[in-house]
Amino acid sequence: MPKHIIIDTDPGIDDSLAFLLALASPEVIVDGIVTIHGNASTTQVTTNALSILELAKRSDVPVYRGCELPLVQPSMLSPETHGNTGLGYAQLPAPQSQAQAQHGSDFMIEHIMSHPGEITLVCIGPLTNVALAIRKEPRIVQAVKEVFIMGGAIRHQGNTTPLAEYNTYVDPHAAHIVFHSGMPMILTPLDVTYQCIFTTDDLSRLQKIDSPITKFIADSTRFYMEFHDEYQKIDGCVINDPMTLALTFMPEICDYENLYVDVDISAGVGLGNTFADFYNYDKKSPNMKVALGVRPRMFMELFLERMEKLAKPNS
Amino acid sequence: MPKHIIIDTDPGIDDSLAFLLALASPEVIVDGIVTIHGNASTTQVTTNALSILELAKRSDVPVYRGCELPLVQPSMLSPETHGNTGLGYAQLPAPQSQAQAQHGSDFMIEHIMSHPGEITLVCIGPLTNVALAIRKEPRIVQAVKEVFIMGGAIRHQGNTTPLAEYNTYVDPHAAHIVFHSGMPMILTPLDVTYQCIFTTDDLSRLQKIDSPITKFIADSTRFYMEFHDEYQKIDGCVINDPMTLALTFMPEICDYENLYVDVDISAGVGLGNTFADFYNYDKKSPNMKVALGVRPRMFMELFLERMEKLAKPNS
Amino acid sequence: MPKHIIIDTDPGIDDSLAFLLALASPEVIVDGIVTIHGNASTTQVTTNALSILELAKRSDVPVYRGCELPLVQPSMLSPETHGNTGLGYAQLPAPQSQAQAQHGSDFMIEHIMSHPGEITLVCIGPLTNVALAIRKEPRIVQAVKEVFIMGGAIRHQGNTTPLAEYNTYVDPHAAHIVFHSGMPMILTPLDVTYQCIFTTDDLSRLQKIDSPITKFIADSTRFYMEFHDEYQKIDGCVINDPMTLALTFMPEICDYENLYVDVDISAGVGLGNTFADFYNYDKKSPNMKVALGVRPRMFMELFLERMEKLAKPNS
Amino acid sequence: MPKHIIIDTDPGIDDSLAFLLALASPEVIVDGIVTIHGNASTTQVTTNALSILELAKRSDVPVYRGCELPLVQPSMLSPETHGNTGLGYAQLPAPQSQAQAQHGSDFMIEHIMSHPGEITLVCIGPLTNVALAIRKEPRIVQAVKEVFIMGGAIRHQGNTTPLAEYNTYVDPHAAHIVFHSGMPMILTPLDVTYQCIFTTDDLSRLQKIDSPITKFIADSTRFYMEFHDEYQKIDGCVINDPMTLALTFMPEICDYENLYVDVDISAGVGLGNTFADFYNYDKKSPNMKVALGVRPRMFMELFLERMEKLAKPNS
Repeated sequence: MPKHIIIDTDPGIDDSLAFLLALASPEVIVDGIVTIHGNASTTQVTTNALSILELAKRSDVPVYRGCELPLVQPSMLSPETHGNTGLGYAQLPAPQSQAQAQHGSDFMIEHIMSHPGEITLVCIGPLTNVALAIRKEPRIVQAVKEVFIMGGAIRHQGNTTPLAEYNTYVDPHAAHIVFHSGMPMILTPLDVTYQCIFTTDDLSRLQKIDSPITKFIADSTRFYMEFHDEYQKIDGCVINDPMTLALTFMPEICDYENLYVDVDISAGVGLGNTFADFYNYDKKSPNMKVALGVRPRMFMELFLERMEKLAKPNS
Repeated sequence: MPKHIIIDTDPGIDDSLAFLLALASPEVIVDGIVTIHGNASTTQVTTNALSILELAKRSDVPVYRGCELPLVQPSMLSPETHGNTGLGYAQLPAPQSQAQAQHGSDFMIEHIMSHPGEITLVCIGPLTNVALAIRKEPRIVQAVKEVFIMGGAIRHQGNTTPLAEYNTYVDPHAAHIVFHSGMPMILTPLDVTYQCIFTTDDLSRLQKIDSPITKFIADSTRFYMEFHDEYQKIDGCVINDPMTLALTFMPEICDYENLYVDVDISAGVGLGNTFADFYNYDKKSPNMKVALGVRPRMFMELFLERMEKLAKPNS
Repeated sequence: MPKHIIIDTDPGIDDSLAFLLALASPEVIVDGIVTIHGNASTTQVTTNALSILELAKRSDVPVYRGCELPLVQPSMLSPETHGNTGLGYAQLPAPQSQAQAQHGSDFMIEHIMSHPGEITLVCIGPLTNVALAIRKEPRIVQAVKEVFIMGGAIRHQGNTTPLAEYNTYVDPHAAHIVFHSGMPMILTPLDVTYQCIFTTDDLSRLQKIDSPITKFIADSTRFYMEFHDEYQKIDGCVINDPMTLALTFMPEICDYENLYVDVDISAGVGLGNTFADFYNYDKKSPNMKVALGVRPRMFMELFLERMEKLAKPNS
Repeated sequence: MPKHIIIDTDPGIDDSLAFLLALASPEVIVDGIVTIHGNASTTQVTTNALSILELAKRSDVPVYRGCELPLVQPSMLSPETHGNTGLGYAQLPAPQSQAQAQHGSDFMIEHIMSHPGEITLVCIGPLTNVALAIRKEPRIVQAVKEVFIMGGAIRHQGNTTPLAEYNTYVDPHAAHIVFHSGMPMILTPLDVTYQCIFTTDDLSRLQKIDSPITKFIADSTRFYMEFHDEYQKIDGCVINDPMTLALTFMPEICDYENLYVDVDISAGVGLGNTFADFYNYDKKSPNMKVALGVRPRMFMELFLERMEKLAKPNS
């Protein structure tokens, strides 16, 4: 039976690829997409979400606009990583469809509370909406089935500061709320995503199919690869978000440890640092399952196959 | 024309006195009461709010339940200050009425947005609900008429840590959000409230009237006075909240300075410290009006008269 | 019997006035002057110390060069307050004398340890040298007679950040070490020094005497007054350091409270904030005597008389 | 030509093994040992240093007593790791020799300044003495040949808190001073030392020689192994300090990266965390060479051979 998921997201190049993977995968049903400031403004990423759904001819999936700012920190967009529109060099037509009137965090609350134990949250942007939902309706902690989170860097260096990963750095206080909420969480930190590089060879394979989908993937990831080359000397690009999405139905891509994970919200150099208490100094029970090992090509094969299927649906 | 106010509150002894002052004052109309964790749990303070309204025969005022926890900090109730129920030695009957179904922060948003420029917020507890409302609907910042806040200690020592006042310490992150929101704010810090002592003489004057109202005031403040004596060597008690309420219609009780005020949310000894940039080192525009001078007896006379009026309405 | 004192100092305009007051006062004998980075570089303030001693014809007082940097914080000089040389518009001849070879903190240790219970430290700059001495020779804590410290702002706003006084802000970690050392301390915070304004009238009185001393006072304080006017809208100037010096032999200028005082060394907005636990929340014993009340003219009369005496020694 | 080294140390089980390795290695000449609080009190570790030198019949090596406390943090000894005396189950006779009168940090200064470019510091305890020396005599930064530091955990979890390694956690402010001093540094963090496990097999090999040296190694490491088993589920023990010592003359044991490394001195959960800016976000030049790869058996063979040589010198 397919899982019902809500995607909380700031598309964003790799966010978009996560949507496409979800829409191409019969194992999940996307009940709604909730947007959040992050890679670009909430207005922009909401537009992006609608456009990508139209690209995939799936405007039936409802989009809910979420918060416009992090909880406490000032806004920090990432145009150098994802381009000014958030989608690299891809240019999608303005969407015909519109976002729903309901606020994204209220949709989360209502949908989770009306389907207790059935809804999977897939959080691939800053966690502001989830944090807000938890504080407004604490019972979602018990009612949600599970929460997949792309975020954090446990042993790996950060991709935004020496210590902090982007989603966590943008809203560390939201991450702190979610991490300490008691929700059943599965974390996909940079430790595993940075082992999964989408290469130009992978792209070439997809480009053998001439389709708006593959053109979008090419145009968006070309920008993303340029960023990875310039800032991190990585050949190819790290597609964090589709990997997190993939774990919802193919958990065997990763190996996990049950750990107590916290995030630094002090005012110092460690702001946004996520870390695990491997030796259990603090005598606290694990609060999440953390992916620390990965089979990169298992994920990449899945991703490529599903993209090929999506790009030529009738073959 | 009377002001329409929403009281955001954690009753709490002095909160209760603020309700009574509001209900006794024709200058304000209480459109709703929103509850917040603080002096006692949200369930308890919601019950208290309903009971006090019944005591004052004003169950027509709707009560909305707010957040159950501070945004980021763990819960910190104050039974040593306000007693286990939050109302000192006062014992009120269980309320017949019930809180509204709508969440307190949603009521704030809806009421402010549907009456732009007309609603005054009176915040006399931790600021969690207001912070949540701002992040969910940023337009309330422009739409609210003004926000009176009981909180902070500018030059005065804290009443919870050496540096921090209780409401701010309980949810410093919420205070940070509100202080930096751009809302038109008037702050009543301990610098002025600690100059307004409700004494046993004041209480004796009220007790000349035999009424459930004066009995409640006597029973609740007796506990409060014991706290002030034991912890702060103060004879009498500091009724912070009714003073803040009084400023909504009698601003001349205080003198004000326009200042840039911030709150410390680092992890150190200053957590929750509120401070003003008097010399404008940071070159920032004032973000609020701060009451720094006070005419204590002007307030106390007002308070006593109104309580007398409320206690014997037909005289 | 006169007190034997060591002055630890970063002259600095008001530091210089403290020297002059000490040299003019039979109640104290200056056994040595130790210099410290602060208002200007250690090289500059050492030169200044030598020059001022020559101005007062007291080159017999030995000068010891101290640390060149704060313990942990980067250097932060204050040319806008004290001018590029540290002495405002005053221009003194290059000194003929030289600093001693021994390091300032070693002189402190040696002098205190060889005269147990007899040496008074007067610290009117950042506390780096004293902190270093304590960590190198912990027994000075018991051996020193008393330590007068100009520093901190308890209830008063800071003079460097909204919360921090200059000496403490320059080296908060040194202040932390000294405050927690167990030494018998008397603190003179901005709370009292900012009530003692040296005015143009005071200056005019001194200028009735034509002398290199009064010329130096006029030239140095003219710059200092301009600073106070521009940054703090104060007419005149605050001569913190001579006031601290005066307390060594005329304690009745101030009223004191025994308090537990700490300094914020977290990385947040409160860095360098000094605060007292007035309500004793932390259940700690007082670690110093803090001057919180002051008789400004009692000090100013003393200062003016002594300066007059110094300026015309034969009258 | 052998290197002249000063060992700054808190023996400590693995510190002791580092002494023995140094004394057994013709590639280095130990000009002095400076002690520091850490694994045990300064008095205890000074006694230990003297005893171990006597055990090795090398009382000619002078021992200098250093600081008794960390710069800012309160004392934090580690009896659970090294036992109450700091040497596990080993019981050495009280030493006949005595420590020198000069303070350890003064010895460092004098010895480095009188042999510019010739002295190698090997720091295997908290960095308090070195920090003090730098602040007292900044010219040692240019005059020291090189500084080997056992400390920090770059990608590896901490061995004291989830984020912090012991030596750095005990005195993070000292580490901050040293790291930012400009000295030529080579860091040996847990990332490499935790790959070098001294096993019971290794111990058995040494125990084939019956000697006070091998008995000491057996008695001290037995305790250490119990600690590693109980707290970290490690079979054997991690002998961090001799590995650092070995790098002074056999650098090829490790692979290095030139990196900008900093230490967290904020008041939050990251206190004492050492981290490298691998992607150079902060655009700062590398301040040290960091060992990040290691050939464990190359080190262990060296260590075992030298211990065998020391234990039966005439063979």
